[in-house]
Amino acid sequence: MARMSANQAFRYGMQVAVFSDRPEDEPVQFMTPHSYSGAFDDVDSMIEFAEKCDVITLENEFIDSEILKELHQRTGTPLWPSTESFALIENKLIEKETFEKAGIPVTPYALIQSKENLEEFGSKHGWPYLLKSSKGGYDGYGNKTVRDSEGAMEAFKQLGGHQGHDILAEAFVDFTHELAVQVARNETGHVVYPCCETVQENHICVAVKSPAPVSLDVQKRAQQLAVRATEAIDGKGIFAFEFFLTRGGELLLNESAPRPHNSGHYTIEGCITSQFENHVRAVCGLPLGDAGLIKTAAVMVNLLGTDLRDAVIEHSEAAVADPDGHLHSYGKLKSKPGRKMAHYTLLGDDVEEVYDRAVGLTEGIRI
Amino acid sequence: MARMSANQAFRYGMQVAVFSDRPEDEPVQFMTPHSYSGAFDDVDSMIEFAEKCDVITLENEFIDSEILKELHQRTGTPLWPSTESFALIENKLIEKETFEKAGIPVTPYALIQSKENLEEFGSKHGWPYLLKSSKGGYDGYGNKTVRDSEGAMEAFKQLGGHQGHDILAEAFVDFTHELAVQVARNETGHVVYPCCETVQENHICVAVKSPAPVSLDVQKRAQQLAVRATEAIDGKGIFAFEFFLTRGGELLLNESAPRPHNSGHYTIEGCITSQFENHVRAVCGLPLGDAGLIKTAAVMVNLLGTDLRDAVIEHSEAAVADPDGHLHSYGKLKSKPGRKMAHYTLLGDDVEEVYDRAVGLTEGIRI
Repeated sequence: MARMSANQAFRYGMQVAVFSDRPEDEPVQFMTPHSYSGAFDDVDSMIEFAEKCDVITLENEFIDSEILKELHQRTGTPLWPSTESFALIENKLIEKETFEKAGIPVTPYALIQSKENLEEFGSKHGWPYLLKSSKGGYDGYGNKTVRDSEGAMEAFKQLGGHQGHDILAEAFVDFTHELAVQVARNETGHVVYPCCETVQENHICVAVKSPAPVSLDVQKRAQQLAVRATEAIDGKGIFAFEFFLTRGGELLLNESAPRPHNSGHYTIEGCITSQFENHVRAVCGLPLGDAGLIKTAAVMVNLLGTDLRDAVIEHSEAAVADPDGHLHSYGKLKSKPGRKMAHYTLLGDDVEEVYDRAVGLTEGIRI
Repeated sequence: MARMSANQAFRYGMQVAVFSDRPEDEPVQFMTPHSYSGAFDDVDSMIEFAEKCDVITLENEFIDSEILKELHQRTGTPLWPSTESFALIENKLIEKETFEKAGIPVTPYALIQSKENLEEFGSKHGWPYLLKSSKGGYDGYGNKTVRDSEGAMEAFKQLGGHQGHDILAEAFVDFTHELAVQVARNETGHVVYPCCETVQENHICVAVKSPAPVSLDVQKRAQQLAVRATEAIDGKGIFAFEFFLTRGGELLLNESAPRPHNSGHYTIEGCITSQFENHVRAVCGLPLGDAGLIKTAAVMVNLLGTDLRDAVIEHSEAAVADPDGHLHSYGKLKSKPGRKMAHYTLLGDDVEEVYDRAVGLTEGIRI
């Protein structure tokens, strides 16, 4: 995603430097002569990079806020979202407490420190449920579904619970839709994107429909909660919030991301101002751009790797040729089944019709 | 402009290498780790660059087609537009003959080789008229307005006419509008952009209105002539054609550019597929994207340098904040009065109303 933000920075005439914890072949490294690498837990390795920058932003939430704070203090380089915002969401326990305090309903959860806690949670919220390490985790990694007391104890250990890592239990929610809303915010104000639906398969988002095929009332409530959540962490930047819409019609905040999010990739062509452009605007203190849809509906389909090979996109001609379709490839050098390699956005009038067309146009693509 | 094409290449996951005849600080060099420099008339200096590439395209028309041909032959790297296309337009005399042969009306011209030719042209088409060197020239550089026989002889010498350079005389045309049309074309077909008006001050394009405020019939004829011109040179890539609309309602082809053109910058947000994206698609053999307008009208205002200083954009807040407005800065490090530093595109319903608003939103900007 750093690539898509870099593209927007370029558009404003900015230069881009990147810091990665991988030594080479990160696609964004092909977009700048200024690439740095090191370790996310080693401030010293980031100093030269930080001193090169006028402002720093992040495309992941896996760097400890204490590390970020030290980096900011030692170099004086502004860093957005702030380390204070990161401190409120990097730990899933603190995150949930923060949002609950702001009056935002979250999925039922508990801190797990013992076998008794595990059993208690199962009795109260039913089996199976989820165990998560309170830090880290991406697309289902770092999560375990537990079905009974024994399995729960094993997962607890695997997640590092016995080594003092905070482990969180989360109830499974009986939902009809998974929704997402992006919010951009800085000292000039905030803008909120449409409420979209994320279509998931095996804990991986395979498509996004915007607006979500739910009632206007639900859409509006999700947008309000997302704005409230951004304010609760005093966010400056772009944020994404994922909600469950329960069978009972309740909205529960599930996850937050302090960065451009896969659920907002459709905004590149779907909205007047993309999440990436508003990300750049937000961290640079510029006025934010309109987040409204350009057409009535936009659908984004994630194109996952189909083969283990050097990356190449085949059979995309029909998708590229559609006048309402927009293909993006991430420039990753290697493909493997299930890896997010590219995405396709299709605009139109009726979101379900656009979804069916987008699936049809992309199902033959091999990457 | 290379920057804006690079942005589109990135979006398709491509890597970008650049070759420039300036050693450093070209803005596009901040967008890739693969920068090469040398001389446009020295094939040897381009070999390493060409061997790095899967396909080469150009952002200017100042490299001799013989040089390009040798580069292509020595490295085998595809190069689009083809050297054959370049050979037909790099020399203004051959260009005019090519388009005339295809039935496209051009501004009255003649090859000038002597004092007698100069006087003859003045007698036939009236004074003043234009002298141009048949190769090179950009935004009025390389052009001289001549008012009498004596001045014409002096200009002829200054342009290198006495050293054997081909010099072209061109009549001034009594026109009501200067129009431009972009065409993208490759083996999959062609798309033609709306006919727009280029608003000129001192031979510099200061703004573009799309669609041009002329009759639909004129717009359509300009589009047809632009497509015919692209076919006449068997163009593969993106091309821009500039026309005079004479007071008598005639369209005369004035200039052509085998590359993304300033008159098409508005297409980034104004059209479904920008000239830069279709440029990338065309040279890569991909199907071309829809060139239609997103809203009824789009206006682009060139933001010229206002001060001699390190480049910085001031007082752009209102322009950036407008929900229909889009600011682009080219990342040039130094500003000077009149230099093209940035542009601003505004979308809306009525082209003249949008133009007035765009001028109002940008007139206070200092760069």
